[in-house]
Order: sequence, then structure tokens, then C-alpha cells
Amino acid sequence: MESMAPSRLVTPGELADALGALRASTPLVQCLTNAVVTNFTANVLLAAGGSPAMVDVPGEAGDFAAIAAGLLVNLGTPNTEQAAGMREAVAAAGAASTPWVLDPVAVGSLRVRTSLAREFAAAGPTVIRGNASEILALAGASEGGRGVESTDSVAAATDAAMALARRSGAVVAVSGEADLVTDGVRTVHVHGGSAMLTRITGGGCALGAICAAFLSTGPDPLVATVAAHAFYSVAAERAAAVSHGPGSFAVDFLDSLYSLAPADLAQAAVLS
Amino acid sequence: MESMAPSRLVTPGELADALGALRASTPLVQCLTNAVVTNFTANVLLAAGGSPAMVDVPGEAGDFAAIAAGLLVNLGTPNTEQAAGMREAVAAAGAASTPWVLDPVAVGSLRVRTSLAREFAAAGPTVIRGNASEILALAGASEGGRGVESTDSVAAATDAAMALARRSGAVVAVSGEADLVTDGVRTVHVHGGSAMLTRITGGGCALGAICAAFLSTGPDPLVATVAAHAFYSVAAERAAAVSHGPGSFAVDFLDSLYSLAPADLAQAAVLS
Amino acid sequence: MESMAPSRLVTPGELADALGALRASTPLVQCLTNAVVTNFTANVLLAAGGSPAMVDVPGEAGDFAAIAAGLLVNLGTPNTEQAAGMREAVAAAGAASTPWVLDPVAVGSLRVRTSLAREFAAAGPTVIRGNASEILALAGASEGGRGVESTDSVAAATDAAMALARRSGAVVAVSGEADLVTDGVRTVHVHGGSAMLTRITGGGCALGAICAAFLSTGPDPLVATVAAHAFYSVAAERAAAVSHGPGSFAVDFLDSLYSLAPADLAQAAVLS
Repeated sequence: MESMAPSRLVTPGELADALGALRASTPLVQCLTNAVVTNFTANVLLAAGGSPAMVDVPGEAGDFAAIAAGLLVNLGTPNTEQAAGMREAVAAAGAASTPWVLDPVAVGSLRVRTSLAREFAAAGPTVIRGNASEILALAGASEGGRGVESTDSVAAATDAAMALARRSGAVVAVSGEADLVTDGVRTVHVHGGSAMLTRITGGGCALGAICAAFLSTGPDPLVATVAAHAFYSVAAERAAAVSHGPGSFAVDFLDSLYSLAPADLAQAAVLS
Repeated sequence: MESMAPSRLVTPGELADALGALRASTPLVQCLTNAVVTNFTANVLLAAGGSPAMVDVPGEAGDFAAIAAGLLVNLGTPNTEQAAGMREAVAAAGAASTPWVLDPVAVGSLRVRTSLAREFAAAGPTVIRGNASEILALAGASEGGRGVESTDSVAAATDAAMALARRSGAVVAVSGEADLVTDGVRTVHVHGGSAMLTRITGGGCALGAICAAFLSTGPDPLVATVAAHAFYSVAAERAAAVSHGPGSFAVDFLDSLYSLAPADLAQAAVLS
Repeated sequence: MESMAPSRLVTPGELADALGALRASTPLVQCLTNAVVTNFTANVLLAAGGSPAMVDVPGEAGDFAAIAAGLLVNLGTPNTEQAAGMREAVAAAGAASTPWVLDPVAVGSLRVRTSLAREFAAAGPTVIRGNASEILALAGASEGGRGVESTDSVAAATDAAMALARRSGAVVAVSGEADLVTDGVRTVHVHGGSAMLTRITGGGCALGAICAAFLSTGPDPLVATVAAHAFYSVAAERAAAVSHGPGSFAVDFLDSLYSLAPADLAQAAVLS
């Protein structure tokens, strides 16, 4: 699976079409995400061509999930009121068939988020996205990583990711040196990207929002999730090539997300 | 009203004086604002020459509003505890005659913020600031926009803005391609600015904080609000001219707010 | 004490060793901090070489403090649930001997944070860090500053800082034109830095997190705190030299924190 033979599952043309569709529709993406990255996540969505709405209070979160084009539920700082908003949003997304992404940040030994992650993983997310340690922990195969960092490789999480996909019905994406995207049967690796994404906060979290944006553009969640990861990786590579550290990388990354054209994505993405 | 005849209501000299007064006084501006933009809003205030204080917890918000030079109440993510803090701050601002700005983010169909927006609009804000859809919704003339985006033009919101100003006693400002500022009798349009402000999160929200800063510098809320919008527009234009996308625009915008001199504002602002 | 005779208390070699140790260990630093600066604080830690974890909800904050390498408790926006998380974290840090930093933001007249600051100052923090007005207020020698700004000089807070250090058992650090670090007996001044740190939000708050990161690298809290301040000051100076305002300063500051080498720190730091 780690070979570099070009993927036949997702074609360059499908990547270009997915980005073109996102730009054409400006999808309304609702994010219930952690306090650390809410600003960066909104800016990533805006730069990519989406329309973010961070509606997370009870009494509003469910109503909005019914009309949003996509939804992100990220468990980074799950206070009581936001957790109630998440329950509303997850229920409404299910009822309205709004595609949604679960990001089980630092799941494992931390009790509040681990309980919520298990509850939401069983509620029919369209995509579950995390690093290798998070996916292993959610799949029940480990105790989790070191805080928000992964202590496991993507390769070590492959079997757990496929099992979690089959059990939950979700596409499961594992971020790492090369990202893995699987629906439990089909598996695609997205190469490239930049380690600098691990030196800014929200590098992984905002990818969850981008997945939600792409999910709104097409019928196949695997293709949409691969396109989201490829788009993110190519933009990160371009930013890393012109920046001088994590501060300028974050700025250049937003500029790259904004300027990356569908045809350039198709040409630069490396899948296997 | 859309003609470009120079405004006789607010002069270039008044704009320069307002910015000079802001820089000279470093006004203490209290912000109860949404979780997405609190960092950017504080940085915009600091760059402009103000002193931000994001004091929003009950037991403190009211005490602080009594000593602040200006106050912003922004309804973007109104959790229960912050809403209680807002009630304290609004009451204390009224009692202490602290000028304050209401930003009814995404008011319309979302229940929690819509109820709060109506309550606060009736509590004597000095300025109400929003996009066209928000002003139409708060005036009772529509159901609101698409998430935090406007789906209406400034021109379409003019009558509603003037009616809302007369009913509430507030100056009402409507952001768009050209901004509208009205007290229900006098009306000024502020031209210029940059569409890039809609591609970063907080582009509108931080303007509410700038309005609060300018309100502290002079006796006429209409002049102060026009000056705030003109300052913001000229700085955005300058940033857009040198940036390469939304990431660098946000950085250059903060630098422009910091370096824009009163005389340059007077020369570059376009009012009608 | 204000003379520029090189400090014999902390040597250039100790500064280099402290930064080298931080980079080698990637310390896991838990931050319970205010909503305004949580993103910037995490990015500052990542740029410096730490691993931030903003775990602040009750039910998790205590468990995490027991395994973290360092902890920051910052009182900038102390809502009820976060305050409960802080109590958990402070108790667990004490039990596990996790070094921790208290930042009593705007302590003085604001009731909620002032009560919490007194409670936590009595709970054995390793370091207390603030501006002169905050340290004077916490020591009981004044009513505090103007919002989050200091209205007092570092020199005026020296006696209060030393008394607070002796009473609390903490190293006390006072930020200003030159920073003061004292354990109640030994006193070191850290010169340099940039006033631009006062024109971006979080300039002081993120320094508290950097202190927590350095505390995890060595046995002497005074040396670690001095090293943290010297590292921060040199990086700020370098950023100020190449930036054009507060927006670009923040970006360049993150890049400087990332690229500053231990040997360069030893050479550029000015202590007395």
C-alpha cells in the first residue's frame, strides 16, 4: 500500500473538479471546534473558498446544522455548553443528511473528549479525521498519543483505520508524513505536504473543516476526503517553499490556499 | 444618496482630528465579542492606537463597562455566561454613559442571538453596526442572511437602517461595497475599502471595536462612526495594494492601521 | 540593581544550555489561558520548540497537569468552567510536582480574577509573572493598572516583587522596559526586547507559557525564568528589526523564536 504507483481510485481530474465545485458553491461550513484554532480554521475556510460559520451554542447549533452544507465537530476544548451544542448539531446533521466530520483531538486517556468521541463516532459521521495515535485510540487499539501529538506512524494505524471505517461507516483519514484515506475497502495515500503544518497550531484541525467543505461538493466521501487532503498538502508545500519559519508559513499557507487553481492541484497532487 | 458629491456632513479635517484624538488618548475599549475574532479584534485595536480589554465574565463585565472609554457587544458566539456578562456591561454602560456598539452578527433565524439582539437594540446602543442582511433582519424587514454573510445590498438596506436609527436612537452603520452611516436624518456613504476584508474572519467584527474606539474621542456619534469606517477603509485599501492573498492581507492590514497618519486619512478618505 | 554590570547569577552558558534542553525535550506544556491569546500562545510554544496542550475543561485539566512537563494558569478571561479546570490543574500540579506559572492578568479591581489570583498565589506556583501594576496589586501594594496595561514602572514594583517572592515561595517576574526576575533574594534584570510586544495582544501572556516550557528543563526556577525572558527578548529584538508594524512583527517574532539558536541567545542576551 505504500508504493508510489499512481492511484486509480481518485484521478487528477476528480481533484480538479472537486476544487472547482467548492469554489463555485462557496459552501456554508459550520464548525464546532476548539477555542485554540477557531480563528485559523475560519480563515483557512475563507481562503479556500468556503463560508465558515462557527455556530456552536445550544439553541442554534442544531438549527444551523440542518441548513449548513457541511459540519465539523472537533473535540479539542469540549466545555459543557459546546458539548451540548455538538449533540444538537450531530442529531440535526443526521436528520438533514448534512455531511459531517468528526475530529477526535487527543482522544485516549482524557475522559471528557474520549467519552464524546465514542458517542459521536457511533452517530454516523461521514468522515473521521485524526493523527495516527487518535485513530488508534478511537479504534480501541491504543491509549492515545502525547497530548495533541501523535506518537504512532500512519503505517501502524492502517489496520485500525480500516477497521474503524468498516465499523463506523465513515471514511477515516489519518494525517502523517503521507496521509491515509480509507473507507474500509478502498485506500488512498496522499503524499507531499509539509512538516511545518505540525509547527503551527490548527494545522490538523483546519484540515477537518476543509474536509467538510469538500464533502459538500460531491457524492463520494472518499474522493472528497482525498481531494481535501491533496489540496491541503499542495498548498502547504508551496507555502513551505517560500516561508522562513512557522509565522510566515501560516501566512503563506493562507495565501496558497486562496490562489491554488484546480488545474495546478491536479498536476501537483501525488496519490498512491 | 449614492452620488459621489463630497459629503458636507463630515469633513476631511474632522476625520483627521478624530484619528488624532484616538491616538492621543489610547482609549480603553472593552470587547465582549465572539470566540472566533477576539484575537484579531484586540490586535486591530492595538494597531489603531487603542487599548483593548476583553473583560466578559459576569461579576467583572459590568464593573469594567463603567470605567471603559468605549464598549463593543458582538453576538457571534453568545454562550450563556458571556450573554450574562453582556447584560451586565450594557446596563453599566447605560448608567455610566459609556458609548457602546452593538454588532448583531447573523441575527435573523438563529434564536439565541436574535433574542439578545432585540433586547440590546432596545437598551440604547450608541451605534448598531452590521452588514445589510443583519440590519434588515434587526429592523424587522427580512429573515437575515446566509450565516454571517450578507445576501442583500447596502442600497436595499438603506430605508431599514434609517428606520432602525430613528427607532433605536442609535447611529446605524451598514457595511458593504460602500458603507452607509446614518442617524436616521443624516446619511453618509464611505467609499473604498477592499473586498479582501470579506476573505478574512473578523473583517466586520473588528470594525465594531474601531467604532467604539472612535466614539470615545468626540461628541458626535455620526462623525465618530464615519471616521471609524473611513479609517478602516483606507487602511484596507493600502493593505490590499501590497498583499498576495488573505493571509498577507491580514498582516498588512494591521501594519496599515498602525502607520496611517491623520493627514493621510483626511486626504485618502472618500465620502459622499 | 539597575546597573548594567553583567549578571553573575545567570551565565550566557546557562542560557544556551536551557534553550538547548528545551529544544531537545519538546516539553508538553499545558495552558489554561484566556480566550484572546490561546492561539498565539500555542503558536509561540510551537515556534520555540515546545508542545502546547490547551486542556482546560474540568474532568481533564487535573489529569493532564499530572503528566505535563509544565503548566500555565492565566486569568485573562476566567469563566466559571475554566476556573474549575484551573483549580483541578493547580491541585494536580502540586501533587505531581509539575512546575507551574501563574499570570494574574489585570488583577486588582476586577473581582473574579482577583479572588482567583489570591487563591492560586497561595497554592505554591513556581513562577508568578506579570507587569508592574499586576505584581503590585497581587502583592497588596496597589489597586492594579488600567485594564491589561501597566501604569507603574518595573523599578516601582521591585520591592513588592521581592516581598511577593518571599511570601509565596515563587520566582516573581515583572515585565517592562527591562524585565525583573527575583526569588526574593537573588535579582536579575533582562534587558532588550521590543516595545512592539505591547502592540500585539498576548505579548505578555505567551511569555508565561515560555516560562513554563523553560521550567521543565532545569532544576533552578530562577535560571529557567531568566532564560525564558532572555530568549523572548532577543527574539523580539530581531523581529522588530525587520518588521513594519505590529502585524508583520507578530509573524517575524514567531519566525525568530523558531530560528534563534542557543549560541546566538548566549551572545545576544543582556543581563544585569
